[in-house]
Amino acid sequence: MEIHVKKEQPSASGLHPNRARMLISCPDGPGIVAAVSRFLFEHGANIVQSDQYSMDPEGGMFFMRVEFDLDHLDSKLPELERSFREVADSFDMQWNIYHAARKKRLAIFVSKEDHCLVELLWQWQAGDLDADIAMVVSNHLDMKDYVESFGIPYHHIPVTADTKPEAEKRQLEVIGEDIDVIILARYMQIISPAFIEFYRNRIINIHHSFLPAFVGGKPYAQAYNRGVKIIGATAHYVTEELDGGPIIEQDVQRVSHRDDVNELKRIGRTIERVVLARAVKWHIEDRILVHNNKTVVFS
Amino acid sequence: MEIHVKKEQPSASGLHPNRARMLISCPDGPGIVAAVSRFLFEHGANIVQSDQYSMDPEGGMFFMRVEFDLDHLDSKLPELERSFREVADSFDMQWNIYHAARKKRLAIFVSKEDHCLVELLWQWQAGDLDADIAMVVSNHLDMKDYVESFGIPYHHIPVTADTKPEAEKRQLEVIGEDIDVIILARYMQIISPAFIEFYRNRIINIHHSFLPAFVGGKPYAQAYNRGVKIIGATAHYVTEELDGGPIIEQDVQRVSHRDDVNELKRIGRTIERVVLARAVKWHIEDRILVHNNKTVVFS
Amino acid sequence: MEIHVKKEQPSASGLHPNRARMLISCPDGPGIVAAVSRFLFEHGANIVQSDQYSMDPEGGMFFMRVEFDLDHLDSKLPELERSFREVADSFDMQWNIYHAARKKRLAIFVSKEDHCLVELLWQWQAGDLDADIAMVVSNHLDMKDYVESFGIPYHHIPVTADTKPEAEKRQLEVIGEDIDVIILARYMQIISPAFIEFYRNRIINIHHSFLPAFVGGKPYAQAYNRGVKIIGATAHYVTEELDGGPIIEQDVQRVSHRDDVNELKRIGRTIERVVLARAVKWHIEDRILVHNNKTVVFS
Amino acid sequence: MEIHVKKEQPSASGLHPNRARMLISCPDGPGIVAAVSRFLFEHGANIVQSDQYSMDPEGGMFFMRVEFDLDHLDSKLPELERSFREVADSFDMQWNIYHAARKKRLAIFVSKEDHCLVELLWQWQAGDLDADIAMVVSNHLDMKDYVESFGIPYHHIPVTADTKPEAEKRQLEVIGEDIDVIILARYMQIISPAFIEFYRNRIINIHHSFLPAFVGGKPYAQAYNRGVKIIGATAHYVTEELDGGPIIEQDVQRVSHRDDVNELKRIGRTIERVVLARAVKWHIEDRILVHNNKTVVFS
Repeated sequence: MEIHVKKEQPSASGLHPNRARMLISCPDGPGIVAAVSRFLFEHGANIVQSDQYSMDPEGGMFFMRVEFDLDHLDSKLPELERSFREVADSFDMQWNIYHAARKKRLAIFVSKEDHCLVELLWQWQAGDLDADIAMVVSNHLDMKDYVESFGIPYHHIPVTADTKPEAEKRQLEVIGEDIDVIILARYMQIISPAFIEFYRNRIINIHHSFLPAFVGGKPYAQAYNRGVKIIGATAHYVTEELDGGPIIEQDVQRVSHRDDVNELKRIGRTIERVVLARAVKWHIEDRILVHNNKTVVFS
Repeated sequence: MEIHVKKEQPSASGLHPNRARMLISCPDGPGIVAAVSRFLFEHGANIVQSDQYSMDPEGGMFFMRVEFDLDHLDSKLPELERSFREVADSFDMQWNIYHAARKKRLAIFVSKEDHCLVELLWQWQAGDLDADIAMVVSNHLDMKDYVESFGIPYHHIPVTADTKPEAEKRQLEVIGEDIDVIILARYMQIISPAFIEFYRNRIINIHHSFLPAFVGGKPYAQAYNRGVKIIGATAHYVTEELDGGPIIEQDVQRVSHRDDVNELKRIGRTIERVVLARAVKWHIEDRILVHNNKTVVFS
Repeated sequence: MEIHVKKEQPSASGLHPNRARMLISCPDGPGIVAAVSRFLFEHGANIVQSDQYSMDPEGGMFFMRVEFDLDHLDSKLPELERSFREVADSFDMQWNIYHAARKKRLAIFVSKEDHCLVELLWQWQAGDLDADIAMVVSNHLDMKDYVESFGIPYHHIPVTADTKPEAEKRQLEVIGEDIDVIILARYMQIISPAFIEFYRNRIINIHHSFLPAFVGGKPYAQAYNRGVKIIGATAHYVTEELDGGPIIEQDVQRVSHRDDVNELKRIGRTIERVVLARAVKWHIEDRILVHNNKTVVFS
Repeated sequence: MEIHVKKEQPSASGLHPNRARMLISCPDGPGIVAAVSRFLFEHGANIVQSDQYSMDPEGGMFFMRVEFDLDHLDSKLPELERSFREVADSFDMQWNIYHAARKKRLAIFVSKEDHCLVELLWQWQAGDLDADIAMVVSNHLDMKDYVESFGIPYHHIPVTADTKPEAEKRQLEVIGEDIDVIILARYMQIISPAFIEFYRNRIINIHHSFLPAFVGGKPYAQAYNRGVKIIGATAHYVTEELDGGPIIEQDVQRVSHRDDVNELKRIGRTIERVVLARAVKWHIEDRILVHNNKTVVFS
């Protein structure tokens, strides 16, 4: 049922077949930028964009993101990575190089609320989400036909208190080996520590409040009861602490005493959609580094 | 040292000598708006602005604010209030009528951080704060000369853990009988329940976070440690629960990983100034009703 | 192809079968609120919400919106309207009473850009847009299958410079007699004065800039060239002056020098969607009054 | 009259005696970042922060800002600049190196509206504006006593249509040789092309609208008449085209039909203050590059 699939748009990744992105975290010290940029220059790469952030010049951490173009990237990348190890070791770096043209593969988890999923599908169709949506996983059947009409596989895996471990085992099976990031698009189940460990800093959740206000369930009801004048949503990486993981993005909107809980939910849906889509975009463009439960976002 | 006092500006209150404002809370039911507006019409008043809010048409509370003009308001107000009691009783109303031309008298409490005080003084000078700043009370001497240069009395009342009860007693003495509202413009002392009771819904505090996130001390350090992407400030009426009173106004601003605690404080100062000033403006214009620890703001 | 139609949601209108909304514009003067509210009370109506705005107490215009409940509204409305004429005439009112439970019928015009249409369809499906989408009219075929999959008729009416008058004639035919409001959801054709006259203050356009900046074509390119730091979108009623009609709603988002024209378009699409949806919502809830090419929005 | 001068705060510049900032614009091409960072590394400098922006990898402009620390910066800077010329020439760079500890000297021009001046003075006192306010120049006497109470010289230079050329000559005399940037803090006179040429990209004006909407006089009245739902302010460098220079910063706030022109002005004053202060802060921290009447702001 391809009627939903609009004409194929040129994706951002497709436009730059030789573009790579490098993410580096290391203890701060002199000469890091110089060493990295010299290395790239000497290997024939042209730096297109480079961002750094130094937590504290005296003794803190240093974070860097470099976008560069390198002719014949595909064939040269393995050698480039091998050579870089020497530079990396001398600065005690944690690092990764990503091939921009290789689209990240997403698995979207959803329960019954559909707005975040619909937004991601819409942005993907519009060519604004430069990734492959490899599958949708849900504990409900509600969105099955809709998702499949885009040609995307839909895995219905019910979850109850009793079947949770089995359900997660089944989820890991359908996810398989080559999913890069899992999006909890209003998926209303707690993820187990073992699952989280497997996808550390690769599970993005949208929480429907301005964290750390209103952790846990029914945040719009909590917000209504507290009488806040602004509500928000928060996209964060999932950790073992409920709604306590590294915050990627937040946004807010003004409300008033006239807005009851249902109206807060209605307003909140648009915030959630926008915030989650931004966080996903930054993740798939390799713009996020995590350190000490906080993110550095080179947006 | 009048050099700070710019040319006298026409105050909003001065422009409408016969303007009154009426605030009403009562259980909802049919005929309230009709009864109030008919009463005012029959007494020769002209409604200039009328706002209502009904929490829930079936069985909730009803809130109303009416601005009206009445010739010879000064002389007629007592009789008007007497006559209104019959209407009010039939709907079980809590109500007040305020004479708009009678400026409210403010006492501003401050400790060492001066930005909120400076903002209020600046808005007052600019004619944007239609009130009398009757005095400034502080547990420190830092702002004495500055405040007195505006011709405003400055009461220095030191507070220590031991002297707190005496200090509050002394504060109540200097405040006297005719202060309408107390502004805690970054006053870093807890107010006792007895004091709060005396000025119920008439003490406005500015808290330097987006409540209910980061209750208590050092909210900017808390925000930095949590890695939020947006910070805020909250103006609220003071209750016995620390930072738990009815929220009047909030605002926020986007921050990033580059902003350390000092930068958050710097950004936050502008938010605090703006939020507190708005809350004070709404209070002195009789735009706020309080119910169940929440505010209805007819802004 | 009903797969898109989620379970039927209770619409707001359905919840209040006896709810009516009254919009009034008239020269300001004493006693208007009292007269209207007394009239409604005496006819057994219960005012649920009432908003007024007085441009200028001395000699300006007065605007009022009243929501009220009246038992057996359906059968009583004609008599109520007849009786109200006397009140209305005495204050020289322009007025309308709308039955809230009668959903407004929308015709959405679209060209090739689909994001605004998709947003309206999504909000409609989610139960957030309390109206009937009676048809989509387009000068292109791109969205035909998509729209029809919702069970909504799609009228493809090509427009060229030569065929414009005929095309408008054909549009008016398919619209017929009972369309309440026309939404130009990125419809890239100028509407003729005759057409506009027929739907005065009932054609809502979304312009992809912060009007009055960047009137006319290619506003994102204009914004890029001017180097603005914030972009926006504007929903307005269509008048004979291009992009010059009464503004209903605007919103903005921060951009930077890093955002090229395509990125501005991408960011702008989300602003456009949100702004247009808000404007449509306010229109169908009878919250907008127009006077002197400006709107009064009782939101 | 030192009563206004609060305890001396450690300025940001004072904290980093060996910090320098380098701004570079040049045609884009391979190896620029590598060349600059290698040059700095080889000269013993430690890069603390580095930002780049490439308009278009194929054939556009490249912009770079580097903050670095260099021991004994004071004595080594002349030699560093000499050596850098070779690098600079090979890439056809326009460039500057600024000593961060050398505070920029500001001349603030003001007419009668005082809010922007007051904000700058307050931020300066609070230690948030890391510059020297060398003088205030005004065509009116209103702010003389106030400004002088801070120990800042106040030059009263009246301007009339007839005396304009002489007045500008007198202004240039009092400014002298060592003013780095001129702030038009609601200075209501047109600056002549000759004067602008002398301080190209060093005169910052605050315009009280969201440019390019409402160029010229009385922008709040223009905004009121157009019925916009959001107002704004714009800080820009002054060029020969009225309100047409490169935009540095903009911000906005929501308004409604209830806000008359005076209320728009009141709301706008806070936007103007914040926007101008941000632009000045970015300028004095050497964060702004200008190209083709647009700014690149590395904020």
